[in-house]
Amino acid sequence: MELLINKIKEDGIVLSDSVLKVDSFLNHQIDPQLMYEIGREFASRFQSEGITKILTIESSGIAPSVMAGLQLQVPVIFARKRKSLTLINELYSSTVYSFTKQESNEISIAKKYLNENDRVLIIDDFLANGQAAIGLADIAKHAKAEIAGIGIVIEKGFQDGGKILREQGYRVESLARIGSLENGIVTFITDNVGETVK
Amino acid sequence: MELLINKIKEDGIVLSDSVLKVDSFLNHQIDPQLMYEIGREFASRFQSEGITKILTIESSGIAPSVMAGLQLQVPVIFARKRKSLTLINELYSSTVYSFTKQESNEISIAKKYLNENDRVLIIDDFLANGQAAIGLADIAKHAKAEIAGIGIVIEKGFQDGGKILREQGYRVESLARIGSLENGIVTFITDNVGETVK
Repeated sequence: MELLINKIKEDGIVLSDSVLKVDSFLNHQIDPQLMYEIGREFASRFQSEGITKILTIESSGIAPSVMAGLQLQVPVIFARKRKSLTLINELYSSTVYSFTKQESNEISIAKKYLNENDRVLIIDDFLANGQAAIGLADIAKHAKAEIAGIGIVIEKGFQDGGKILREQGYRVESLARIGSLENGIVTFITDNVGETVK
Repeated sequence: MELLINKIKEDGIVLSDSVLKVDSFLNHQIDPQLMYEIGREFASRFQSEGITKILTIESSGIAPSVMAGLQLQVPVIFARKRKSLTLINELYSSTVYSFTKQESNEISIAKKYLNENDRVLIIDDFLANGQAAIGLADIAKHAKAEIAGIGIVIEKGFQDGGKILREQGYRVESLARIGSLENGIVTFITDNVGETVK
């Protein structure tokens, strides 16, 4: 997605060979116009999939998801990172390990919002090691919902997440795929943008 | 805002005399179409205020804020509830006490995204005791930004937050104001919806 790639080129900050900071438009400060276009792009790529729900995780997944939901006309559910202890029997949960923060989070959603009749689009801001997406897929499986695909704003193509998810048979659509952050330069993988890599 | 009030009437669940659960469209599952209309309503009420930034707090403030930002064409900043310890000198912070969860959270934003030239619209999903809004206003003051107003999706008019903020001189616009949740029934304050109560 050219608009997004240009935004990353302009405003992304390479902190190390593995860390790209985009908190000027995605993770902390949010650019609503860009989110709208991102939502439109997700909607266009998944519009024939019969999506009934979008599933994401707080907090940075919410803005792109709600814009995709606006255009696909489906509700968004965001998984919370902490369990509500009073509701433990009414939740689907999974554990997500963050390599960046080096901590595990329990993520969960209320059972009543997802069931076997749902076709779910999982959306997240970043795909690195794939832990968050795998956790969300896990929750969808608990609910016996079908996973129609995974929409990612920025994929770090040099980490394993995309490969793992595609090998598991998921259709992964990443709007920007980064091949390398070496020497402080963002290099994009342009060949397969928008395609499912088998 | 009639659409919102009808949605609360239909889908809101009164858990006690002080707790209204709206996690089917606002706090957990999100209705993007409704969020779009909420954003439009905020934009229309504050459009003559010269807003340059919207300031909110993760996670439930993000969806209405990003829709308001879309229509006011300004960026949204969401305060995080946990400090990034490596960035401590680059953050504006404040402490927010949650009466519901009975815990204090440090909230913070990166200094570079707010300054004395900004006119800020603070948006949040709920206004009860006003702690979150006061914390966000505190952060805006640290940045010497001007606070143009406070937009609230649902105000619990029977709690003190709205009164405190209005007495401090803030323009508070609540799209639905609840007068009472007694006996399991949601009663709305209809007289002053959309008006600044002096």
